[in-house]
Amino acid sequence: MQKPKVLAFDVFGTVVNWHGSIAEEIKRIQLPVDPNEFASNWRKGYQPAMARVRSGELPWTKIDDLHRMILDQILEGFKISSLTEDAKSDLNRIWHRLQPWPDTVEGLRLLKQQFMIVTLSNGNLGLLANMAKNAALPWDLILSAEVFRHYKPDPETYLGVASTFDLLPEEVMLVASHKDDLLAAHQCGLQTAFIERPFEFGPSFTRNDLHHESFTNYHAKDFIDLARQLSV
Amino acid sequence: MQKPKVLAFDVFGTVVNWHGSIAEEIKRIQLPVDPNEFASNWRKGYQPAMARVRSGELPWTKIDDLHRMILDQILEGFKISSLTEDAKSDLNRIWHRLQPWPDTVEGLRLLKQQFMIVTLSNGNLGLLANMAKNAALPWDLILSAEVFRHYKPDPETYLGVASTFDLLPEEVMLVASHKDDLLAAHQCGLQTAFIERPFEFGPSFTRNDLHHESFTNYHAKDFIDLARQLSV
Repeated sequence: MQKPKVLAFDVFGTVVNWHGSIAEEIKRIQLPVDPNEFASNWRKGYQPAMARVRSGELPWTKIDDLHRMILDQILEGFKISSLTEDAKSDLNRIWHRLQPWPDTVEGLRLLKQQFMIVTLSNGNLGLLANMAKNAALPWDLILSAEVFRHYKPDPETYLGVASTFDLLPEEVMLVASHKDDLLAAHQCGLQTAFIERPFEFGPSFTRNDLHHESFTNYHAKDFIDLARQLSV
Repeated sequence: MQKPKVLAFDVFGTVVNWHGSIAEEIKRIQLPVDPNEFASNWRKGYQPAMARVRSGELPWTKIDDLHRMILDQILEGFKISSLTEDAKSDLNRIWHRLQPWPDTVEGLRLLKQQFMIVTLSNGNLGLLANMAKNAALPWDLILSAEVFRHYKPDPETYLGVASTFDLLPEEVMLVASHKDDLLAAHQCGLQTAFIERPFEFGPSFTRNDLHHESFTNYHAKDFIDLARQLSV
């Protein structure tokens, strides 16, 4: 198989450490909850919220607004009513300020020398642009579910990257730390690279899905490892 | 009026020198036509082609495909039938390889330190990403008519930049060398900056529209001048 021309990156978990960044923020603003539990609960609401959009139950709704709906629910669940509207709005924007993994920026810079590097995230464009500016992520192009009006794993997202560049699906590779995302991309004909992110779900969670799979073309520890494998 | 938070740049003519880049390409491939006339004719087909999309006569069609329709027409007009399909396809992609003005990259780097810098171009995403990679344009986000499924000067494009960032229209400034574009943005409530590009239409064309206008908030020689005016 030829090397791909475009690398499309999943973002939450693959590029940035959502769990650690949110837990840090909860500590910083001294919210009286367990920071790891809060981070996990926020993320747990994410797939069900997108599923409501994918099924048509909700009209197109961007992730900022889904994050806010979930935040309001979990604040209620934790019985926290002390936050002002401004404080809630600012907390919701923690998703715009997520921190990259230690290898992320150097790895992306290496990969950018050889490939077109783009995002393929369910995050909205404004969120991804603010995150990139804040964390110095050197994207060639920010692509989002918002562009295709479909959330991953809908095929329109994976195939949309290829058509954006007038490429065949196999000329695009999805880079992600989530196997469901990679399997869906593989089924659309894309190449796939799995990135181990053992601490994506926090320090007390042990991932049991870090083994190789038949549907992944590459399996890398991190982005620097992927750059090394792809430069051979 | 407060300073804007996002600068949205028109691209063809404002950021890159389409006329000079196309004329150079025509010379390079030794097409037996007047290079300046060829460049001018190609661009002349652009507004009418977009008007057919804006009116609904054509379904959504990206600029790459509109450029190709116009190219086929002008090759016929010049009675050139010697180009292979590959050669025509490559020539059409000259729009992906347009060269920036001498101040462009340095000016954008200066402006990027203070503002979110984004494109707002009728060019499609793949075209703009290839151009940015080729010319080292340091965009924070590439926005295009393709995202909004409307061509400028439709209001959906200008207002789309604001909503992408959850901002008010007046928190966004359009930067362009075309007054019709700036007037439309102004009518949507955006701030506006006119950039003089005296040679946009080629060496033998004298622009007579470089004077100040009531609807432009800034009027600058180039991007470095704009950065200087905005840093006061």
